[in-house]
Order: sequence, then C-alpha cells, then structure tokens
Amino acid sequence: MAVTPPACSRRLLPLCLGLFQGALLLFFALFFTYDKPSAQAADATVVANQLYSIFPLFQDIQVMLVVGLGLLLTFLPRYGLSALTHNFLLLNFSVQWALVIQGLLHHFHHGHGHLDLRNLLTAEFAAVTVLISVGAILGRASLCQLFVVAVCEVPIYFASEWAIITRLGVLDVGSTITIHVFSCYFGLGMSKALFGTVRRPAHPKETPTPGSDLQSLVGTLILWVFWPSFVAVLCQPGDAQHRAILNTLLAMSASSVTTVVASSLLEKDGKLSPSHLQNGSLAGGVAIGVVADMAVPPVAALALGSLSAVTCVLGFRFLTPLLARKFVLQDQCGIHNLHGLPGILGAVASAVAILVASEDTSGSHFSQLSLAGANASEAAWGQWGNRGVGGQALCQVAGLAVAIGGSLLAGLLTGAVLRLPCLAQPPEPLCFDDSLYFKIQDPAESPALGGRAEEGALALKE
Amino acid sequence: MAVTPPACSRRLLPLCLGLFQGALLLFFALFFTYDKPSAQAADATVVANQLYSIFPLFQDIQVMLVVGLGLLLTFLPRYGLSALTHNFLLLNFSVQWALVIQGLLHHFHHGHGHLDLRNLLTAEFAAVTVLISVGAILGRASLCQLFVVAVCEVPIYFASEWAIITRLGVLDVGSTITIHVFSCYFGLGMSKALFGTVRRPAHPKETPTPGSDLQSLVGTLILWVFWPSFVAVLCQPGDAQHRAILNTLLAMSASSVTTVVASSLLEKDGKLSPSHLQNGSLAGGVAIGVVADMAVPPVAALALGSLSAVTCVLGFRFLTPLLARKFVLQDQCGIHNLHGLPGILGAVASAVAILVASEDTSGSHFSQLSLAGANASEAAWGQWGNRGVGGQALCQVAGLAVAIGGSLLAGLLTGAVLRLPCLAQPPEPLCFDDSLYFKIQDPAESPALGGRAEEGALALKE
Amino acid sequence: MAVTPPACSRRLLPLCLGLFQGALLLFFALFFTYDKPSAQAADATVVANQLYSIFPLFQDIQVMLVVGLGLLLTFLPRYGLSALTHNFLLLNFSVQWALVIQGLLHHFHHGHGHLDLRNLLTAEFAAVTVLISVGAILGRASLCQLFVVAVCEVPIYFASEWAIITRLGVLDVGSTITIHVFSCYFGLGMSKALFGTVRRPAHPKETPTPGSDLQSLVGTLILWVFWPSFVAVLCQPGDAQHRAILNTLLAMSASSVTTVVASSLLEKDGKLSPSHLQNGSLAGGVAIGVVADMAVPPVAALALGSLSAVTCVLGFRFLTPLLARKFVLQDQCGIHNLHGLPGILGAVASAVAILVASEDTSGSHFSQLSLAGANASEAAWGQWGNRGVGGQALCQVAGLAVAIGGSLLAGLLTGAVLRLPCLAQPPEPLCFDDSLYFKIQDPAESPALGGRAEEGALALKE
Repeated sequence: MAVTPPACSRRLLPLCLGLFQGALLLFFALFFTYDKPSAQAADATVVANQLYSIFPLFQDIQVMLVVGLGLLLTFLPRYGLSALTHNFLLLNFSVQWALVIQGLLHHFHHGHGHLDLRNLLTAEFAAVTVLISVGAILGRASLCQLFVVAVCEVPIYFASEWAIITRLGVLDVGSTITIHVFSCYFGLGMSKALFGTVRRPAHPKETPTPGSDLQSLVGTLILWVFWPSFVAVLCQPGDAQHRAILNTLLAMSASSVTTVVASSLLEKDGKLSPSHLQNGSLAGGVAIGVVADMAVPPVAALALGSLSAVTCVLGFRFLTPLLARKFVLQDQCGIHNLHGLPGILGAVASAVAILVASEDTSGSHFSQLSLAGANASEAAWGQWGNRGVGGQALCQVAGLAVAIGGSLLAGLLTGAVLRLPCLAQPPEPLCFDDSLYFKIQDPAESPALGGRAEEGALALKE
Repeated sequence: MAVTPPACSRRLLPLCLGLFQGALLLFFALFFTYDKPSAQAADATVVANQLYSIFPLFQDIQVMLVVGLGLLLTFLPRYGLSALTHNFLLLNFSVQWALVIQGLLHHFHHGHGHLDLRNLLTAEFAAVTVLISVGAILGRASLCQLFVVAVCEVPIYFASEWAIITRLGVLDVGSTITIHVFSCYFGLGMSKALFGTVRRPAHPKETPTPGSDLQSLVGTLILWVFWPSFVAVLCQPGDAQHRAILNTLLAMSASSVTTVVASSLLEKDGKLSPSHLQNGSLAGGVAIGVVADMAVPPVAALALGSLSAVTCVLGFRFLTPLLARKFVLQDQCGIHNLHGLPGILGAVASAVAILVASEDTSGSHFSQLSLAGANASEAAWGQWGNRGVGGQALCQVAGLAVAIGGSLLAGLLTGAVLRLPCLAQPPEPLCFDDSLYFKIQDPAESPALGGRAEEGALALKE
Repeated sequence: MAVTPPACSRRLLPLCLGLFQGALLLFFALFFTYDKPSAQAADATVVANQLYSIFPLFQDIQVMLVVGLGLLLTFLPRYGLSALTHNFLLLNFSVQWALVIQGLLHHFHHGHGHLDLRNLLTAEFAAVTVLISVGAILGRASLCQLFVVAVCEVPIYFASEWAIITRLGVLDVGSTITIHVFSCYFGLGMSKALFGTVRRPAHPKETPTPGSDLQSLVGTLILWVFWPSFVAVLCQPGDAQHRAILNTLLAMSASSVTTVVASSLLEKDGKLSPSHLQNGSLAGGVAIGVVADMAVPPVAALALGSLSAVTCVLGFRFLTPLLARKFVLQDQCGIHNLHGLPGILGAVASAVAILVASEDTSGSHFSQLSLAGANASEAAWGQWGNRGVGGQALCQVAGLAVAIGGSLLAGLLTGAVLRLPCLAQPPEPLCFDDSLYFKIQDPAESPALGGRAEEGALALKE
C-alpha cells in the first residue's frame, strides 16, 4: 500500500484522532467519577480552601504551557500558526491520554478513579514532556508524527517518574530530572532516529525575523514570570513552598542578567543573539527545580542561576554546532541547551547541596532539610533515613543517569516508529511552512495582504 | 438636518460620550457608597478571605475580556487597533452603565446601593453580552452605533436575566443561556435589522492574514486558559466550584481536539481553517456552562465538549453560508457558531442531565444534584422542589426559548434604532479600516514604515 | 584614552555587568539568609495563608512589569526587541541591586537580613522607578547608560521614600508620589542633562506603525487589567484593600472612557491618537494610588480618573510640544503626561480628601479614614494624630514638593554622569534600531524575510 505521505495525513490523521478521542471518552466513562461531595459544611470550607490554594498556581501553569510556550515556538516566521496550534493540541491530547493511563493504573490497584485538580496537574506534567521533546523536531514533523510521540512518551514518562521518584527516592520538587532532563534526551534520541545521518542544509524559512523573534521573546517572558508557580505547585504548603518560590525568583533573575553578559562576550561584535536571550533567561528556572525547596542559602540560588545561563549560552554557541557536525544531530529549538544541560547542572547541584547541608550543621540543619523536602514521597524519605546523606547524594546522580539513559533509549525507539511512511513526514521544501496545515490566503492573490508591502514599494518609487 | 455621517460622528460621539460620563458620575454620587468598614478584627479577616477567594477569578475574567477577547477580534488585518479599542471602551462603558442600572433598581427596593466586587462582577457579566453581540457587526458599525447598542442591551439583559433565573428558576451557573444564547440572538437580530436585505460582496480588507490569524489565535488561547474562572466564579465554594472547574477543563480539552478532527475532515484538502480553530476550541466552554456544577460524570463533560466543537465547525462550514444566502444575514465573527449553537446544545444537555440524574438514583443522587446547584437563587430551588424533575427539565427548555425569542425581538428593535443617520454608519469602502478611527501614519508617507518592504523590494531586484 | 563609544560598549558592558553580578553574589552570600522554618504545624498554616494572600498579587505585578510595560514600550517599530529586552534586564538588575541595598541598610541596624516575598516586592517597587525614568530617553541611550541609571536611581529612591513616608508621614498606599512622581521628574532631569540644548529633528525610525501601535496597546491593556493589584498589594488586608481595589477599578474605567472623549475632541478630524489611548487609559490608575484606600466615595474615584485622563491627553497635545520647544526637553514615552501630571493631581486630591473627610463627619468618619490608611507606617499615623487634619493635608503637598524637587536634582546629576564618553551613547543614525544591540538577520540578505514583501511587490506588478 504505497500511500504518498501528504495524502495519507490528510484523511488518516483526523480519522485516527477522532477514533482516539472516542476511545478516550469510553475510558473516561468506565474509569472515572468525581469525588463524592462532602456532607458537612466544615468539609466544604476545607475543599474550598484547598481549591483556592492550588487553582491560581494551576492557572499560571496553564498560561505558561498554552500561551508562553506556544509563543516561544513562533520564532520561525512562517510557521507561527502551526507551532502555536500543534503545541496546544498536543497539550490537550496528552493530558487526556495521561488521565486515561493514570485511571487505568489506579483502577488495577484501588478500583474506580476519582478525578480532582491534582490528577489534572499530574497529567499536565506528563504532557509537558511531550511539548518539550517535540521541540527538537519542530517544523520538520507532521501532526501525525507528533501524536505518535505523545502516545509513546506519556506512558514512558510515568514509568520513568515511578523509577526515579518512587523506587530510587530522588528528591526533585520542580521536576527538573523527571521532566526537563527526561524529555530533552527523549527528544534528542527521537530526532537522531528520525532524521538519521542525512545532513540538511539550512532551510530558507528557518531564519527568524525581528518580528518573530519579538513574539518568541514575549513567550519567554510569560514563561519567566510564571515559572515559580510551576516549581512550587507541588511543594508542601508553608516554608518549603515559600522558599521554593524565592529560590526560583532569584535563580531566574540571575539567569537573565548573566545571559546578556555571556551572550555579549561570546559574539564577535558584542551583540546579543535573540535565541540566547529567549532560552538563557529560563535556564535558571530549569536548574533550580531540583533544589528549590531545600535549605540552600539565597546566594546558592543566584549562583546556580548564573551558572546555568552560562552553560546554556555556551551550549548554543559551541555544543549545538558540534553535535550537528559530529553526530548530525538536529535540535531545532535548542532543547539540549535549555532543558538538558541546566537540568544536569541542577541534579549535580542537588547532590552537592545534600552533602554540604549535612556537613554544615550535623543534625539540626539536616532535619531542616528533610522538613523542606517533605513533598517527596514518604517512601523516599524513609529510604533516605536508612541510606544516609552520602547515599541520598548518590541517589540524585543515579536518578539523573536513569533519566538520561532511559529517555535516550526510549527516544531512539520512538524515532524509529516515526519513520513509518504512513505518518506523512513533510517533504523538505514544505517544512517550516504554515500552508501545509492551514487554509491561509496566498498573499500574492490577496489585495489586502499585499497592501502594505505594495505601499512600501510605491514609497520606494517616489 | 442633513448631517453627513462621518462629520457627525466626529463631534457628536465625544460630546455625547462626555455628557454620558458626566451623567454617570452624577448617578454614582447619588446612589452609591461603599460598604461600611467592619468594626471588629474578626470581620476584617472574613472580608480579606472573601476578597482572596474572588479577586484572582475576577482578574482572570478581566484578562479574558480585555486582552483575550480583544485579541480574538483582531483577525481583520487592517482593523486590529479599532477592534481592540472598541472592545475595551465598550466594556468600560457598559460596566459603568450596568452599575448605574443596578444602583437604580436597588435604590427603589432597598435604598442606597453598596458597591462591592460582586456588584462589579455582575456588571461585567452584563457588559459581556454587549461585547458578544457587536461581534456580528464588527467592522461595519461606527463607535456611535456601538455605544447605542450598549445603552440598549444592558437593561434588556437585566430584564431577561430576571425572567430566566428569578422567575423561571432556570439553573445556569456559567451563564450559558442568559449571556451566550441571549447575546448571540440579540446580535443576529440587530445585524439583520441594521443591514436589511442588501447583499454585500466580500470586502477586500475582510480577509485575515497569517499574522492577524496568529494574533487572533493568541486571543483564543487566553480565553481558553481562563474560561474555567468565568464559569466557576459564581459557584457555591467547595465541591460545586471544584466540579465546575474540572468539567470546564475537560469540556474545553475535548473541544479543541475535536475541532481539529472536524475541521480537517470537512475541508477538501484536509487543512485546518484558522477560524474554526479560533472558535471551535472555545465552544465546549460555552456549552458546559449550564451543567458545569451539576453532578454529571466526567465523560459527559468530555462528550458535550466534543459535540459542541463539531456543531461549531459544522455551523461555520454550512449554516453561516446558508443563512447569508437565504436570509442575507451578516455574522462577521460567527457568533452564531460559537455562542448560539453550543449554547442551545448546553441548555438541552442540562434538561437531559436533570432527567437522567433523577432516574439514575431516585433520592440520593437527586439531593446531590440539588446540593451541586446551590448557587442558583433560593427561589429557583424552592420552585424546583415544588415542580419536580420533569418540570425543572421543562423549565430549562422554556428558559432557552425565552432567551432566544426575547433577544431576537430586542435585537431587531435595536438594529432599527442603529439605522438613524446621525449614528454615522461608515460607508462601505471605509469599513474594516483603522484609519477611520485612528490618526495613523500613512505608510506611503513614512520612510520608516516602508523600510522593510522597501528592503524586500530591493532584495527582489538583486 | 579616546575610546570610540560603540567599541567600548561592546566589551565594557558585559565585563562590568559580569563583575557587578559577581559582586552581588558576594553581597548575598554575606548578608542574606532565609527566615528560619517555623517549627510548629500551626505556624506552617499561617505562613501558607500569608503566601496565598500575597503571591497572586505579586505575580500580577510581575506580569505588569515584564510583559505589560515591556510591550507598551514596543511602539517604536524597529526597536521592539531592544525595548522589551532592556526593560526586562533593568528590572532584574535593579531588583538585585535594591535587595543588596536593603540588606546593607538592614545589616547596619539589625544584623543579618532575612529574605521573604515582601522584601522582593519592595525591591521590585524600587526597580519600577528605573523602568519609568528611562522612558524619557528610550531609544537614544545605550545599555551601559541604562545600567548607570539603575545604579544611581535605586539608592536615591530609597532615600526619597524614607524622607517622604517615614519622616514626613505622607499617606501614599499606591506609591503615586514615591514612585510615579519621583521617577517622572528624575527621568526628565536626566533627559535634560543628557541631551542638553541640542534640538534634534524627528528621527525617521521614531514613527509608530499600526502594528507596533497595536502591540503597545496590548501592553497598555495588560497594565490596565493588573493595575489594581499594584495599588492594593501593600494595603491592610480587609476593607481597606477591598476599597483600594474598587477605587482603582472605577478610576481606570472612567479614565479609559474619558481618554476617548478628550482625544477625539482635541484632534482636528475627531480621530483618536493611539498614544493618547495607550497612556490616558492608565492615568486614572496613577492618580488614584494616593487616595485608593481612603474613605472616598465611589464618585470621587470616577471623577479623579476622568480628570487625570483629561490632564494626560492635554499634556500630550499641548504641554509636551511646549516643553520641547521652550526647554528642548526630550520625553520619548511621554512619562510626564502619564506619571507626572496625574501623580500631582492625585497628591492634591489626597490633601483635599483629607480635609473634606474630616469636615464631613467630625470624628467617626475621621477614625474610619485612619482605619483605612492603616497600611502606612505607624510613625506616620502617630504624627498625624499629633499634627491634625490640616497638618496632614499640608504634609501630602510637602511630600509632593520633596518628591519633585529631589528627583529633578538627582536626575540632573545622573544625566551629567551619563554624558561620560565611556558610556557609549549611540550616535543619532543608530538610535531606535534593534540592529545596534541584536544579531538580527539583515532583511535584504534573507530570502525568507524578504518573502512576503516580495510577494506584495509581485502582486503590485500584476
């Protein structure tokens, strides 16, 4: 059955997607109810207060993922509509898919699943991994392929998160290891397996314009503003959450100033590169996630933020070109520099923080640290109690290794699946172009669109 | 007095508007004070907690109306400034006007009116009806005409809301019937009466560009993110509010995935239409409003979201062209597809939900349902108690009929008023053009503006 | 040492900035720790509740400063990336610098500084003054110069704030006098000293395009929506905060409607000027700050909002050209019309409100007013008790005079420092141009960028 890719994607995608949405409905009908309403009035107040404490942070995260991340991806000047839309669709699809997997897992252990805002938040976190990973292949993959990525990556994320947090007992309040590092190497593996060793020249539609760079920067700023909510939403309420917010704010502040320093020093004529700024400003937020609620002093948060910004800019300047040259590795959005390197830095920093904290003040400080991290699963803390400080530090590094290794392998396998011809990878000339997915007016035919350029051309003649 | 429309609008509008603002000031001076400060410290905590529970949701709704809806309307590439500004002005004007009407009504019943955030929220809801209705005549109406719409529609909304909620006892927590359905048919009636039976060819400035479509899509995404706040803000705190938020999230998630399926299947070459996406993603939020706090299972919310997205896309594809052909009905933003059809769907779903819920579990489930809807006026619930389940289901449908009939009639009358020549309807060639309302640089005269196009033209020659 | 400015800025800026960031790290290491975690569970709930009451407002303010103000400054069509980036960097740099100064001050009085969200908020307020002041010289100053402004202005702000609030006991809950008036006259003095008496013709890149005006208007709307959070964040929780939010909402609503009236009446052909709208809509928020929590009736808030919008529009229409002609005063963003004039209006209104409130209801109302303003420092209130109503009214005016006089003087001195040749003021032809600071694709060389203009040009030929 020699289906030409574009024609296939035309009908296959909506049909499959429609069937999938139908199947999801069935799953929901079978496995989910809401929690029973509470009978007493006192309970109602408790429910209301819980809602008020989590809902504003949940909304912040929604803004980050839908508007912030969406805009960040619009740096390709002719691919803005597609980037924004694909990000939005993948988020929705992955959240529903993650809810179904959660429901199934819960069903086999405890019976009927109850849906609340916290479930949705966990599902949203699973969806984030998909959104990050597909950044490596942005503009060169069909919507069909993106949905296959979502189908594969969500269950693998749950397995990886279980291994790292529940089994190994890694402390990772801001999901740096479980989300950022995991999804980065998943995306790189996928990109490698999908694109193979064919070197592609720079695509003419790949170059950002000042307008698209500005749009993308607005996305960065929205992510930057709401990042503390992402890191702190799962923290233990009280001091730990307060500290996580402050640490994140400090790290991201240092990150943005340092990005300018590093980018100016590295570029020949001292000018800033927009892509450094778009990514470096957020690097501190990625790195701080794993230590945010630990009892680190403010200066450590600032230093980690600065360091991760430097790493990110160095990555863009030297590592990405190197990887492209040596390994023919395609990383369109530079996810390795924003999520991979700062994530590794953060994981190492957490091991150091655990060692230093216990040496500093044997006893009192240590218990303070444990108090801080009380959001981690009880099992993890029990294990730490048993394994001691050195063991926990080792664990953090082990968790990092599991995240990198597991995700690379899973990514390579997923990338191999993406090569199936029926998934309709767009041919090279149609990459990075909205017209592949959208019914948009051809500018040359529309007098309205040509209008302003036309007037400019007229102005030229005068 | 043969005033030519444009000249009239030039001076008449600001003068009338100025007088109106002065009159509003007078009304406020006569009818409003703030609540007395509470004397005890305990009360202060209560006031503070009430504020913290409603203010974040209030801000979310402000973002929706000012930024989200404003950007959604900028899909006309040369009318962006006007669309954003008119939306913003109408909102402010209508809120003040609604506060005055509330104050007067309250004055005749209970004496001096006290102003609090809840009053402002009710006024904002009244203003939303105006913002939705004028979508039908976007780009073809003068600012004068828009203000007349606001003056007429706000009191009619209050009357309709009183009839539907207080008299009929309809359950409608997310204002689907009272706001969405009402304002949609008001807008359509107005459009019909204003534009009559003259067929207009497609306007050259009516076609969106990829840039304006992207801007509009960002508006959609902002509306999408904050929609749960709009639906849940007036819910009873506790379980009902929690459920309303979850149902809205699920419905909107299903809505956006289904929109892509439906739009791809309906278009010949399987491409997405940006306008389907801009509207269909929100259709689930419109439909779910009327059942959001009822004890419906999660699957029902998902199904309703999917169904309303399909309806919305079908509306754009078939119904809007049909209405334009048969009835010469102008609906610039497609409000019928986003607010009308999904609203009707939601109202019918609420009747079904009420019938099914009571059949399922005679007794226990029923009381649970009543608990859920406790935000409705006490009168309504008393009535339900008396009228039984079938009666309440009938009531929902009756409320829908009242909303459609009343608003169509009122819209037709308002549209007739808008034909007054002194209201300065813009002539056809000046429609959809910012330069009618704004002092903007003529691009042909400005070297700065022509610049990039000029460089493009230069690049062309080389 | 005849360093040519651009070359200097190329290397000097990142090096200095890097050193500065390093020094800040050192300061933080020496002077800051977090608060000790509280031992009891009851305290944890208190901490959590405090966090939930301040964090959403803090996030709102972050959105205002990073996204809203950033976008507002993008009205220069070729300077958008720089405006957004400089605003973001200055904010981060100034916040860190303000934290260090706070830490030092605290250190000499009370020992080690403890960092919490309230410290960060105060630091953010100090940073706002920098962001407002540099609006006067937007597009003509180098990043080096902007950092010098930040270094100078932050400590002067703290001194001025101490003199006005702590010493004089001025009531100013929304920081109208201490932030808006102060930073406006600081900026004007700086601009005067920096640019001297050389008249510059209008720059070709200075003219906004409809697209950049739209972007800027979106920034205005974001500021408009979240302004109540800025005014109310430091209020006493309870009635005073509720009233501050309502007053701000009313003032800003009146402001935006009145701006349209005033702008239409003043322009010859009755069209709106985008810059009037971008600024006038916010004028009410500036003016209301100083009286927001006082027991003024709603009508007063509306009237003050309207009046300040009229003042702002009149300022743009008559005062700015006059100052430019008579005093060769450069005010790129019109900060005098948005922050200066409405701020003065607000300060005078506060004196009137204090006099009227006490005359109205000798005794009861007065104590109500004091209750309202309980957010001010205890010292201030003690002073008021001693000095009586007339004295307090006088104080408000004296505070205004101190803010204007002090900031003008400090601004002139700072402006003189900015003339140092090593600070690399950009030469006139390179002003208002992103390419001075950013590595951006030259449009003439990029086929992708030229594309759409090219198609427009093709369309023209057909």
